[in-house]
Amino acid sequence: MIIIMKPNASAKAIEQVSCLVKSKGLQVHLSAGDEVTIVGVVGDKSKLRGINIEMSEGVDKVVQVTESYKLVNKKFHPEDSRIPVKNIFIGPDTFTVMAGPCAIENRDQLLLCAEEVKKAGASILRGGAFKPRTSPYSFQGLEEEGLQYMEEAGRTTGLATICEVTSLKALSTAVKYVDMLQIGARNMQNFELLKEVGRSGLPVMLKRGLAATVDEWLNAAEYIISEGNPNIVLCERGIRTYETSTRNTLDLSAVPVIRQKSHLPIIVDPSHAAGVRAYVEPLSKAAAAAGADGLMIEVHPCPSCALSDGPQSLTFEQFRQLMAVLRPYAQLEGRQL
Amino acid sequence: MIIIMKPNASAKAIEQVSCLVKSKGLQVHLSAGDEVTIVGVVGDKSKLRGINIEMSEGVDKVVQVTESYKLVNKKFHPEDSRIPVKNIFIGPDTFTVMAGPCAIENRDQLLLCAEEVKKAGASILRGGAFKPRTSPYSFQGLEEEGLQYMEEAGRTTGLATICEVTSLKALSTAVKYVDMLQIGARNMQNFELLKEVGRSGLPVMLKRGLAATVDEWLNAAEYIISEGNPNIVLCERGIRTYETSTRNTLDLSAVPVIRQKSHLPIIVDPSHAAGVRAYVEPLSKAAAAAGADGLMIEVHPCPSCALSDGPQSLTFEQFRQLMAVLRPYAQLEGRQL
Amino acid sequence: MIIIMKPNASAKAIEQVSCLVKSKGLQVHLSAGDEVTIVGVVGDKSKLRGINIEMSEGVDKVVQVTESYKLVNKKFHPEDSRIPVKNIFIGPDTFTVMAGPCAIENRDQLLLCAEEVKKAGASILRGGAFKPRTSPYSFQGLEEEGLQYMEEAGRTTGLATICEVTSLKALSTAVKYVDMLQIGARNMQNFELLKEVGRSGLPVMLKRGLAATVDEWLNAAEYIISEGNPNIVLCERGIRTYETSTRNTLDLSAVPVIRQKSHLPIIVDPSHAAGVRAYVEPLSKAAAAAGADGLMIEVHPCPSCALSDGPQSLTFEQFRQLMAVLRPYAQLEGRQL
Amino acid sequence: MIIIMKPNASAKAIEQVSCLVKSKGLQVHLSAGDEVTIVGVVGDKSKLRGINIEMSEGVDKVVQVTESYKLVNKKFHPEDSRIPVKNIFIGPDTFTVMAGPCAIENRDQLLLCAEEVKKAGASILRGGAFKPRTSPYSFQGLEEEGLQYMEEAGRTTGLATICEVTSLKALSTAVKYVDMLQIGARNMQNFELLKEVGRSGLPVMLKRGLAATVDEWLNAAEYIISEGNPNIVLCERGIRTYETSTRNTLDLSAVPVIRQKSHLPIIVDPSHAAGVRAYVEPLSKAAAAAGADGLMIEVHPCPSCALSDGPQSLTFEQFRQLMAVLRPYAQLEGRQL
Repeated sequence: MIIIMKPNASAKAIEQVSCLVKSKGLQVHLSAGDEVTIVGVVGDKSKLRGINIEMSEGVDKVVQVTESYKLVNKKFHPEDSRIPVKNIFIGPDTFTVMAGPCAIENRDQLLLCAEEVKKAGASILRGGAFKPRTSPYSFQGLEEEGLQYMEEAGRTTGLATICEVTSLKALSTAVKYVDMLQIGARNMQNFELLKEVGRSGLPVMLKRGLAATVDEWLNAAEYIISEGNPNIVLCERGIRTYETSTRNTLDLSAVPVIRQKSHLPIIVDPSHAAGVRAYVEPLSKAAAAAGADGLMIEVHPCPSCALSDGPQSLTFEQFRQLMAVLRPYAQLEGRQL
Repeated sequence: MIIIMKPNASAKAIEQVSCLVKSKGLQVHLSAGDEVTIVGVVGDKSKLRGINIEMSEGVDKVVQVTESYKLVNKKFHPEDSRIPVKNIFIGPDTFTVMAGPCAIENRDQLLLCAEEVKKAGASILRGGAFKPRTSPYSFQGLEEEGLQYMEEAGRTTGLATICEVTSLKALSTAVKYVDMLQIGARNMQNFELLKEVGRSGLPVMLKRGLAATVDEWLNAAEYIISEGNPNIVLCERGIRTYETSTRNTLDLSAVPVIRQKSHLPIIVDPSHAAGVRAYVEPLSKAAAAAGADGLMIEVHPCPSCALSDGPQSLTFEQFRQLMAVLRPYAQLEGRQL
Repeated sequence: MIIIMKPNASAKAIEQVSCLVKSKGLQVHLSAGDEVTIVGVVGDKSKLRGINIEMSEGVDKVVQVTESYKLVNKKFHPEDSRIPVKNIFIGPDTFTVMAGPCAIENRDQLLLCAEEVKKAGASILRGGAFKPRTSPYSFQGLEEEGLQYMEEAGRTTGLATICEVTSLKALSTAVKYVDMLQIGARNMQNFELLKEVGRSGLPVMLKRGLAATVDEWLNAAEYIISEGNPNIVLCERGIRTYETSTRNTLDLSAVPVIRQKSHLPIIVDPSHAAGVRAYVEPLSKAAAAAGADGLMIEVHPCPSCALSDGPQSLTFEQFRQLMAVLRPYAQLEGRQL
Repeated sequence: MIIIMKPNASAKAIEQVSCLVKSKGLQVHLSAGDEVTIVGVVGDKSKLRGINIEMSEGVDKVVQVTESYKLVNKKFHPEDSRIPVKNIFIGPDTFTVMAGPCAIENRDQLLLCAEEVKKAGASILRGGAFKPRTSPYSFQGLEEEGLQYMEEAGRTTGLATICEVTSLKALSTAVKYVDMLQIGARNMQNFELLKEVGRSGLPVMLKRGLAATVDEWLNAAEYIISEGNPNIVLCERGIRTYETSTRNTLDLSAVPVIRQKSHLPIIVDPSHAAGVRAYVEPLSKAAAAAGADGLMIEVHPCPSCALSDGPQSLTFEQFRQLMAVLRPYAQLEGRQL
C-alpha cells in the first residue's frame, strides 16, 4: 500500500501517518520528493482494518498495490486450471461448446435440441429453467419441470448439462439434476448465492456482471473459491456501454486480460452479447482466435417462435455450419473441438 | 408496436408479416414510403408472445411504442404517491433525510448515531446489518444482532428505521425489526428478492442498479408493485461511467426523468455516489434543488475508523451543518424538512 | 512516480530499474514488502522522457503521483480565478447566465433574443455561427454574417457575446466580432485550435468533451493557459453514458470536483446535457446549488421552428420564469445574479 | 419518420400534427391503437427542416426510420468497396497490415522500421508526424521533417505510407508526401477537417471517435464522401468504457456491424485499443477472425525508449512473429496477406 501525501502536508502530518501505520505493526518507507512525500507501507495490510488512512490529515490518496483476490490469482497459482464437468475438461487443451435454448419451453424442444447440438459437436447442453427477466410480465421459466427434462436429455445423449440458478431455492433444486451451475450476469454480486454455490460441490460458470470490471468479476469468483470450490469457469457476455448497435459490447480483450490475471478458464457468450443472430458466427470465430476456452451458443428448433431471445438464437442448420466453420480455428489454437 | 421493413422487402414479405399479426387478432396499418414500408400494429401486443416478428423475412427492426411497466407508470396513475413509513410520509410535501452509519458496528455506535441524527433533524435511521462487499475478505455485517440494535434505536428515539436486505433469509429476519426495507444496487435485478419484498407488507426503498437504465429500474419496481406492494421509494445512487474522479457518476437528471415517468418518490444518496466526503454537501443541495424527495446520508461517530465507507461518511458536526444548510433549499422547494 | 515490481521480480531486475532511474539524475527509494517491492522515484520526472520504465524486466506497473497539468492546478494557484468578460467577471461572487439561440438564424431572431434575455437578467448572449453537426446534411450556420449580427446585438444591448469556434478560420473571423470564444465538446482535444485560442487574447469557455475525463479536460485547459491565456471558464455539458432517457448524463459532481482540482470557474449547460426542455429548470437549480459559477441556456423566439436543438430551447416566457426561480438559489450561494 | 402521440393526446392535437406534415407536401398514415395513436410520415423528410414536430402539442416522441447517412450506406450501395492505396487495394480480398512507429522520431528510426515491416509482410507504413497529445508537455511530433522521411521510406521500400493529419495545415503539408491520410479518434467530428480531406484526392482512414457510436462514425464518413472522396477505410480502435484493465475497450462487434451497414472496409488497431503489448497478438487474430479487412500495428526498434506509446509497440522480432501467426487466419478468411 502506498500513501501519497498532499503537496503542502506538514512534517507533523507525515509523522502522524507514519506512527499510525507503525502502531499496527507495519513498516513504513518514506520518499520525500520535491512536490510530494510518499509513504510506502510494508506488511500485512489486513492489520489496518477499521483505519481509514485516506482521512488522516495531509493525505492526498491511497494506492493499493496488490489485488484483493488471492485464490483465483495467477500470481499465486501460475498453472492454468482444467475444470472437470461430467466426462470432459474445460481448459487450455479443449474448445468447449455449450449449446441449447435460452429457455426450456417443453420436453420435446429440449430433447430435440440436445440431440442436434450433440450431433453437431457440442459437449454441454445449456437451457434456462429459471429466467431472470427485466419485466415481471415476461416468461419466467419452467423451473423444476425444466430441470427434469435437462436430466433426461443429459442421460439420453451423454451431454453434460448446465443451468442458471437465480436463488438459493433454485440452487437446491438444480444440484439434483444438472452437472454444472451457471451464475448469470445479474447475480454476479449476489454474494449469498456465490457462497452457497461455493459449497455445492458442482462446477460453476460465472458470467461477468452487466457492468462489472475484471477485478470485481475475479473478486466474485473469489467468493466461490474461498468456500472450497475451485471448479470455476468465467464467461464473458458483453458489457454495458453507450453503443446501441449491439445489445451489449462484447469485450474480447477480457480473454487475454483474464489469461494474465487468473488461472481460471474463460469462455465467451456471443449470443447474449450481440443480441443479433448474424453477429454470432464472426464473434464466435473471434473468441476462438482471441484464445477463449470455449463458447456458449443459443440454439432453438424455431428461433422465430422462441419464448425468449429468439433473435439471437441459431437454427440447427446454422449451428452445424458454425461448428464446421469453428473447427479450423480451434485447431490453429491447438485445441480439441 | 411498429414494424419497419427493409428497403428491399418484397410485397410478399410485407404481406406475410401483416398476416402473421392479423392471425393473432391484432390490427395492421400499412404506411408505404419511398424508401421503406412501416407496419403499425394496433391491439394487445401480449398476444404476440412467442412470435419474434423481427426474424420474419424482410423485417428491419421492431420499435416498441409503450412501456412494459404499468403500475408504476405515471401515464396510468398521474398523481404523485406519498409513501407512509412509521409516522411520516415520503413524497411531494416533505424532504426526508435518512441518516446513519454505512454498517452497524456495535450497539453504542448505532445508538449514538440515532440520537445525533435525530437531534439534527433526520427522520429515518439507516444502518447496514447485511453488507454486500466486493471482496469476501471485507467486513460483512452483524446480521440479526445489528437489527436488534436498530429496533432499539428506533424505539428509543422515535425514528423510523431502514436496513438493506440482500437475501430471502435476511428479509425474513429484517421484517421483524425495521420499518422500511432497502434493496441495494447489486440486487436491483434479484427478481426473487423483489417479489418477496413485494409480499412483505413493508415500504421499500429500491436503489438504482450500478448500470441500470431508468426503464430497467422502473421495471424492477414493477416486480414489487405487481406483488401488491405500492409503497416504493426510488433511490438514485450514481451510475457507472468512465469517469474516475468520483466513485460513481451521480445522475441527478434521473430526478426530473422519474418525476415525468412515474408517480413514485425519488431520493438521492450522494454519499455512495461520490465516495468522497467533501462532495456530499454540494450534491445534497443539488439533489434538493433538482426536486428530490429526500436524501440518504452516511454519518459515523468517527469516520476515520469506520469499518465500511468511512471516507464518504460525515461526522455528527458535519451532518448538523449539512442539515442547517439544506433547510432553506427544502423551503424553496416548498417541502417540510 | 512509483514503480511497482512484480511479486517474482529478481533482485537483479530491481537493481536495473533503480540504476536506470538514477542514471537520469533522479533519486530512488526502495520499499521491499512481503509480496512486492516498490520503487519510489524522487525528482523531475520529465528527465525520464523516452524511457518506458513499465517495459523494464520485472516491472508490474507505474503509478503517477502528480497531475500533468500545472498552471490550471489549484495546488499551485489556490485562489479561485475571476475571469473578465467585457464588463463583467465570471467567478465566485457572481452567477453568470449566458443565453441565446443554439444557432443564429437571421438578424431579427438574434436581436430579439438579445433584447429579451437581457431584460430577463442574462449577462452574456450566446449564438452559434459555426455549427458542428453530426450529419453533413443538417444546417451548418451563417458564419461571418451571423457574427455581424452578434456584434450588433452586443452593441445595442450592452451584453457581452460568446460564439463557438470550430476551426482556425472560424477563430480568426470570430475574434473580430465577439467578446468570448467557445470551444465545443467535439473540439476539446483539437489541440491546434486550443493553442491558437490560447494566443487570441480573448476569454475562452472550454466545454467538456463528449466522453472526456476531468483530467483530460484540465489538460485541454492547460493547452490554452500554457500559450499565455489564463482567462478560461470550464463548462460541464453532460457526458456520454449508457442511459438514453436524457441526451447526455449531466455530471454535476464535476462542479465540486473541479472546485477542488482547479482555480478556474465552471458553468453548466443543462440544455445540451438533457436535450429536453422540461429538464432545464430542475437541472439549472441543481447546478446553482452544486456551486456552479453560472449557466448556459438555449432560448429561441419559437423553439418549435428552430433550425437546431429546438426541443431543448426555452421560450422567452419560460426563460423569464427560469431566471425568477433561480434568483433565490443564487442568493443562497452568496452570488449576484 | 414515425410520430408517436401521447396516450391522452386529443383528436385536435392529432389533427394538427397531421396538418403540419401535410402542409409540407408529405403524406400521413394514422394508426389509432388502444393506448396511443401513431402518425406515419411518408415522403422526403428534408422538407420538414425547421419544424420540430416533437414539440407539437400531444406528441410523445418521434422515431427516425431511415439513417441520415446515404452514400456510405450499404442499403444503397450493396457491393463491398475496394479502396486503392498506391499499389494495393484494401477490401474483401486482402488482409492489409499497416505497421510502423507511433511517432516518427528521426530518419534512422523510420527507415529501419520501414525496411523491417516490409520484410515481415506489411504493405503500408504508418508513422505519426503530428501527434495529438493529452498534455501540452508531451512530445508533439516532427511535422514536415517527419513527412519527408515518410516519403523517402515509401520510395526506397515500395511501401504505401499513411500519416495522421490533425489540422488543415497539417493536411496541406501531408498531401505532398504520403499516400493515405489518417483522421484520428479525437478529430472524428472535426467536420471542417473531414470536408477538406474529402477534397484532398487521397484515400483516407477514419478512426472511430473515443466514444462515437457506429452511426456517428458513418455520418463522419458521409462528410468525407459527400465532398467527392469515396476512398474511405474505417478503423476500429477501441471505445471508452468503465473498464480500466485495457486503455480502451476494443469493440470487435463493430466489424460485423459495419459490414452490415456500410460497404466501406474496416480495419482494426489493437495497439491503441489495448495499450498493452501482450494483448496485441490475441486481439489481432480475433480481428482477422471477426472479418476485418486489415490491421494497424505499432512497431518500434526499441519500444522501451519510444517517445510515444512504447508499452503497446512490438519489437521487429515480435512483429515478424505476429505476421507468421496471422497468415493462417487470413487464409481461413479467404484473404491474401
